[in-house]
Amino acid sequence: MEDSVMLLCDIGNTSYHFFDGESEFKESVTSFSPNSIKKKVYYISVNSKVNEQLFELENWINLASFISMESFYETMGIDRVVASMAVANGVVVDAGSAITVDLIRDSVFVGGFIYPGIRAMSKCYKNISPALDYSFNFTLDLESLPKNSQDAISYGFLKTLHREVTSYKLPIILTGGDAKLLQKIFPQAEVDEKLIFSGMKKIISII
Amino acid sequence: MEDSVMLLCDIGNTSYHFFDGESEFKESVTSFSPNSIKKKVYYISVNSKVNEQLFELENWINLASFISMESFYETMGIDRVVASMAVANGVVVDAGSAITVDLIRDSVFVGGFIYPGIRAMSKCYKNISPALDYSFNFTLDLESLPKNSQDAISYGFLKTLHREVTSYKLPIILTGGDAKLLQKIFPQAEVDEKLIFSGMKKIISII
Repeated sequence: MEDSVMLLCDIGNTSYHFFDGESEFKESVTSFSPNSIKKKVYYISVNSKVNEQLFELENWINLASFISMESFYETMGIDRVVASMAVANGVVVDAGSAITVDLIRDSVFVGGFIYPGIRAMSKCYKNISPALDYSFNFTLDLESLPKNSQDAISYGFLKTLHREVTSYKLPIILTGGDAKLLQKIFPQAEVDEKLIFSGMKKIISII
Repeated sequence: MEDSVMLLCDIGNTSYHFFDGESEFKESVTSFSPNSIKKKVYYISVNSKVNEQLFELENWINLASFISMESFYETMGIDRVVASMAVANGVVVDAGSAITVDLIRDSVFVGGFIYPGIRAMSKCYKNISPALDYSFNFTLDLESLPKNSQDAISYGFLKTLHREVTSYKLPIILTGGDAKLLQKIFPQAEVDEKLIFSGMKKIISII
């Protein structure tokens, strides 16, 4: 395998997220032409429209076809699957538009759940009542029940997640666009924004 | 105090919720005329428009003016305050458009938090992605991490709340429109749809 000419790419609903072995870069799903790349690209994608396009291109290799979903479940996002494969023992918290939480023990996927992401939850409170339109306080005291409105919604969103995630007593790995923000309530966690690429490399090494 | 001619009323954003000592009934905020009632009405209200109207009517008595907010906090909803006053030791879970959770120990309000209600949270997941547009499974297994999409969002919404609420190791009292639905995940809880009226009676007894 020639690492120097290989690209990895994680495709979401809005962007292509590339990693060339050294640095990362993003391209917009709407403006980027995948046939402008001539190198071999190993990719995963949750974007079915892009998937159709890439199927025609020989140098774009969909890693999904090399993954057995038996250990996971059929409708599980391929990004969650691949991130889980990068971890031997731990809780993967991927904080994007949704926050996915996946537990891996002895390299086996135990299960996982889906929680709303920061923006989605903020909008959710605001839609219930303008009286709940507060930004979240990421430095709230997680040890005592709030006595003010901002902390009452922050606790509702963050403490319930925190209590669940820390209950597994395993290392926590934060990834995704809001990883650093969530680290404020999980100071013990490791932030690994390239976790998905570690998982992809692992799959490539065995195909 | 003449119980037989007295009415209690809890006013929300959409309805007047009456209790005459025996039965409950609701009237719509948009169509009901409060001056059609000549009896004495003790009320609380989170609806500022209705409050203005009622201020003019002598037989409508706002119980909020008899409550010291010092033990609570300034922006706390009066319905949460009054429900909390009905309980000596317990967790009040009021499941409406939002789910409020309030802890009372030895008749003292310890603190509380605000979580999205069932409809709001369902909409929240759906807005993130059509792939998350599932109804919640209230009979999911709370003891093991899910391996399917419906349970993954149900667990995200319900288990995180469940873990927090049960952590206080105090009796749980469910109230509000979705109390019976939430009882499915809190089978040990008591459902008390008239909790707010018990709190109101307690206040009336000391004024």
